[in-house]
Amino acid sequence: MNKVITVIPGDGIGPEVIKSAIQVLDTVAEKFKHQFTYQYAKLGGIAIDEEGTPLPQSTIDLCKSSDGVLLGAVGGPKWDTLPGHMRPEKGLLGIRKALQLYANLRPVTAHNSLLDASTLKREVVEGVDLMIVRELTGGLYFGQPQERRQEVDGEAVVDTLYYKRSEIERIVKQAFELARLRSKKVTSVDKANVLESSRLWREVAEEVGANYPDVKLEHMLVDNAAMQLIRNPKQFDVVVTENMFGDILSDEASMLTGSLGMLPSASIGGEGPGLYEPIHGSAPDIAGQNKANPLATILSVAMMLRYSFNMSEEADAIEQAVTNVLEAGFRTGDIAEKDDKILNTEEMTEKVIENI
Amino acid sequence: MNKVITVIPGDGIGPEVIKSAIQVLDTVAEKFKHQFTYQYAKLGGIAIDEEGTPLPQSTIDLCKSSDGVLLGAVGGPKWDTLPGHMRPEKGLLGIRKALQLYANLRPVTAHNSLLDASTLKREVVEGVDLMIVRELTGGLYFGQPQERRQEVDGEAVVDTLYYKRSEIERIVKQAFELARLRSKKVTSVDKANVLESSRLWREVAEEVGANYPDVKLEHMLVDNAAMQLIRNPKQFDVVVTENMFGDILSDEASMLTGSLGMLPSASIGGEGPGLYEPIHGSAPDIAGQNKANPLATILSVAMMLRYSFNMSEEADAIEQAVTNVLEAGFRTGDIAEKDDKILNTEEMTEKVIENI
Ligand SMILES: CC(C)[C@H](C(=O)O)[C@@H](O)C(=O)O
Ligand SMILES: CC(C)[C@H](C(=O)O)[C@@H](O)C(=O)O
Repeated sequence: MNKVITVIPGDGIGPEVIKSAIQVLDTVAEKFKHQFTYQYAKLGGIAIDEEGTPLPQSTIDLCKSSDGVLLGAVGGPKWDTLPGHMRPEKGLLGIRKALQLYANLRPVTAHNSLLDASTLKREVVEGVDLMIVRELTGGLYFGQPQERRQEVDGEAVVDTLYYKRSEIERIVKQAFELARLRSKKVTSVDKANVLESSRLWREVAEEVGANYPDVKLEHMLVDNAAMQLIRNPKQFDVVVTENMFGDILSDEASMLTGSLGMLPSASIGGEGPGLYEPIHGSAPDIAGQNKANPLATILSVAMMLRYSFNMSEEADAIEQAVTNVLEAGFRTGDIAEKDDKILNTEEMTEKVIENI
Repeated sequence: MNKVITVIPGDGIGPEVIKSAIQVLDTVAEKFKHQFTYQYAKLGGIAIDEEGTPLPQSTIDLCKSSDGVLLGAVGGPKWDTLPGHMRPEKGLLGIRKALQLYANLRPVTAHNSLLDASTLKREVVEGVDLMIVRELTGGLYFGQPQERRQEVDGEAVVDTLYYKRSEIERIVKQAFELARLRSKKVTSVDKANVLESSRLWREVAEEVGANYPDVKLEHMLVDNAAMQLIRNPKQFDVVVTENMFGDILSDEASMLTGSLGMLPSASIGGEGPGLYEPIHGSAPDIAGQNKANPLATILSVAMMLRYSFNMSEEADAIEQAVTNVLEAGFRTGDIAEKDDKILNTEEMTEKVIENI
């Protein structure tokens, strides 16, 4: 197959991990007889520096004209003091909205060879295999009004948690579809004892769930979910929740594995291409040092192959290669324990490629 | 001193753990020559059953006429299917608002003799001593509008995150005051890269912080805080945050200790009395069996003595008694490991009393 991929290296370690991911893509192309064409675009800090805006229109256009978008990382202290609309994260929020990427998929899988990296006990994390499905284009992130107000008794401020029923339906449906391909359980997380939006969310989850009699649906309050993720994470298969709850819970869940450097993500939905990125940040402190862990980005490529290109054999090949490399004891610095062989970014990439 | 305490046993195991707490209060009264007068009130499920409302006006009046309120637990499956305004938790939310209890204090202390009860590794939780200060009467919990809407393209729903500047000021101030009595560090948690309310929150935290040059102020994004609580909880002293973030993070943090049965809370602020309650629920499955762990409620009594009655010596005596009992190896079922001596509710209470 012939696929066009928009590549957005971004800031910090972004360009380095993206380079690794492209090498892996090239290897897959060769082995499985595909052709991947790359078109490069700018977003975040580098776009602010070079084009005066965190999300140039040309980037949106390039993304829309492609089959998949691969992103490195955005942001860094350099841009932290700029006014709100000029911050790198506006680029991220903007591209999600522009491409209507309403479903953020964050798998959390405990790699057997990395169990000790977690701050949780081995027996608690061993076997964890869950996927957080976070709504990504609604809720408090985009609701209006969002403003300061001068009231008679002083200043006040408002943010708005807004959802259309149809927005809840499509994300919950996505979760059920994914659960069908996994262990057939959906945990819908809300705060139905307090929020009206959560009560609608729960209703919709029940309605959608009725069409998936083969998938078990369970509701959980968000405060309890925050506990259960630590108490007994193995109880979860697919967790679906609204944007802000998902932001918090998915970062919490990422700690189960002990390393952000291992975790990929996919943002899908809408008509256009999906966007794939590691969940770690731009790590400016180690940028340019050939030290960054490329595995999260490489695993994001696997997600792109699986979800956007329908190439599950190719995706499996990448994931298996990563597992093999870990089992052989190879590590980048962030996931290394004392006896491990520490590799730099390029060496780690090389090992993965050898194993594909 | 002579103090009037409104006692709200509530539902499930509430009456049992309250009975223990009263015995402890009586012991303190005798030993330290105080007089505590108890007036009983109803709230939650039992109030729905007997008075047709989760929060009778008489309960509010009794609370207002007292020096402190001690609450057991509210709710249970029996009332779970009632319409929203008739749910037990409405009683809880209502009493917070009626007494203007804007500051919810949740200390999380790792007891050395219970370290293994946590799902986190011993070295991660050993020495944890943090306090979450959650704003309790604002934000998404009470903001208006909160409603369903019929729009041209279908049903939608809105909740509102609303804060007055003055509401943020008073809770942040509370956090700084507490930090002064502890390790002099405040972590203010927000989502300033997305929410306008968080940007105001951060501004106010800076302003208030300027009056406490002896206390270190640090800002942390809520998603990062959810990670850091698991990655390295010892970095925290006082954590202050808005209502919903606090709900999620405080329940997450409660897991550090491994047992909800140990954790007290205080809700203070306003002109009237503070309210003290264990953070655990009503545990209907073990209600009436003399099995519940009374320690969280007993430790809540210690918080009442300390924060509402200014009796820190008395509070210390209770906390020390609990530590002694744990160190002697006594446990209720919820916190027992194989070699421990398992006590029932009454026996555990007796042990604490002996140690005061
Ligand atoms: C950078 C920030 C706006 C973003 C979010 O909150 O969505 C990030 O935390 C994420 O999870 O991708
Ligand atoms: C019962 C519920 C409304 C309540 C809350 O969310 O405040 C509870 O979770 C708590 O933390 O006290």
